[in-house]
Amino acid sequence: MDLKQYLNDQLAQVEAAMTRLFPAAAGLQPDLARHLEAMGYSLFAGGKRVRPILCLAACAAVGGDRRAALPAAVALECIHTYSLIHDDLPAMDNDELRRGRPTNHMVYGEANAILAGDGLLTWAFELLSRPAEPPIAPEIQLRVIQVVAVGAGPLGMVGGQIIDIASEGKSIDFATLREIHRRKTGALILAAVQAGALVGGAAPDQYAALSRYGEMIGLSFQIVDDLLNVEGSSAELGKAVGSDAERGKATYPAFFGVEATRAKAAEAVSEAVTALADFGPEAEPLRQLALYIKHRKK
Amino acid sequence: MDLKQYLNDQLAQVEAAMTRLFPAAAGLQPDLARHLEAMGYSLFAGGKRVRPILCLAACAAVGGDRRAALPAAVALECIHTYSLIHDDLPAMDNDELRRGRPTNHMVYGEANAILAGDGLLTWAFELLSRPAEPPIAPEIQLRVIQVVAVGAGPLGMVGGQIIDIASEGKSIDFATLREIHRRKTGALILAAVQAGALVGGAAPDQYAALSRYGEMIGLSFQIVDDLLNVEGSSAELGKAVGSDAERGKATYPAFFGVEATRAKAAEAVSEAVTALADFGPEAEPLRQLALYIKHRKK
Repeated sequence: MDLKQYLNDQLAQVEAAMTRLFPAAAGLQPDLARHLEAMGYSLFAGGKRVRPILCLAACAAVGGDRRAALPAAVALECIHTYSLIHDDLPAMDNDELRRGRPTNHMVYGEANAILAGDGLLTWAFELLSRPAEPPIAPEIQLRVIQVVAVGAGPLGMVGGQIIDIASEGKSIDFATLREIHRRKTGALILAAVQAGALVGGAAPDQYAALSRYGEMIGLSFQIVDDLLNVEGSSAELGKAVGSDAERGKATYPAFFGVEATRAKAAEAVSEAVTALADFGPEAEPLRQLALYIKHRKK
Repeated sequence: MDLKQYLNDQLAQVEAAMTRLFPAAAGLQPDLARHLEAMGYSLFAGGKRVRPILCLAACAAVGGDRRAALPAAVALECIHTYSLIHDDLPAMDNDELRRGRPTNHMVYGEANAILAGDGLLTWAFELLSRPAEPPIAPEIQLRVIQVVAVGAGPLGMVGGQIIDIASEGKSIDFATLREIHRRKTGALILAAVQAGALVGGAAPDQYAALSRYGEMIGLSFQIVDDLLNVEGSSAELGKAVGSDAERGKATYPAFFGVEATRAKAAEAVSEAVTALADFGPEAEPLRQLALYIKHRKK
């Protein structure tokens, strides 16, 4: 398969679904219209749409109808986006740039940015709970909501951010770094794969294999992020290079050096691909996505 | 019925369910344990638990098993609590006291308070999506999640807060004040009644009647809030009296004066009770709750 073409095609489908599903501002009270604009400012700011694409690919890997996974895919991107808006706030990372553009609170002010995040998170669950077309069995749809809520929640993504900010400027051990990675980034990536698998009708053994894949892909994603922060150019990342090190944040390269960190990323990707051993050609996009995550430049 | 005894009994049941369902901190990484503590600090800070009690009472009014509505009741209180934590933040109302205690960010810091809110909101949807005991039909459970997400979301509670902060210090018309009330407070109260009605197995006409009740009760709740802010004592409210007026916030008494505002509260309560005309004694708690909301002191 041509990965580049696949990614372009998937990206277009995800963006189209986002645009189609996003609430219309027409006729709304002006402050509400601006609230939707603030939510959309960050949601439609580009990005690789890794979580939605993983969700759709996991659905396809078990022979499901990818269209049924589109609302979940969009919901996952909303949740990812809300987490970026809140992470960028002055009280958290105090970032002024995100993907090369001013952060949400720089444009709309701090109060509106907090509420844009709250709005995106809540709207994600509205999307996840709506009658799906094509339909999803209600008990499956409930399980999708549950894996997303667990992945995004106090012991998932939010918990990872909690440990991350508590660790800032402190010397942390590797176990703590893994906890941060596993929860802050890994948990929602895992949820994306699990949500797609559920919508696609995964059998229990398929679900277990895809969950293993999701864990390993989440791990490699974060290791590569750490590497890019050390090696990348500001233009590629859309934020200042070396900013993690400046803030005294622990990273994989700080523990193991760049070479050993690369080997660890490769190992995680290899384990992700191995988890798919019993899958046929339907899982080829997932295999390619694992390699793509290792080689991505931003 | 003895309303005071009823309220005490309901409060005890809600608090017991909250304690039972809340995630255990034992064995967790210390920062995560403190995150749960921060969530619990605000969730277990007292309060009248109006939304949970309305949810349980609406379930009972249609002959449902109230135990099935307990997770939804707790989820509604989590969402209400997260909204208070975020509203109190320095970037929003910048309040230092809530229910007579330091606000979440005064105790845990701003970043942790934002995340405590995020954690409560997300956990609420985890609770709502879990297999219920006694069981709820999955398609009903999905509708419960949807009404809660709509009530709490960008065009519901979050949208109300958006208009509220955008209106601060401005001269607004009465239509805008109603929009703020309807969304900021009314939408989640309506969702509480609707969620209970759905869990209880409401027929479509019952659901419509209870929705009307929920709208009117939400309206009266906010009108009384405005009155208390003008008339109440600081000890009763747990916050500074007259703070709305100081901030230049529009209120019902500012538009109509105290006497006419009292009449409007009475009218809304009367319409709420009228909406229950076709219900039998099972709806007596809902009728009494309407009167209680009108006469409450804080």
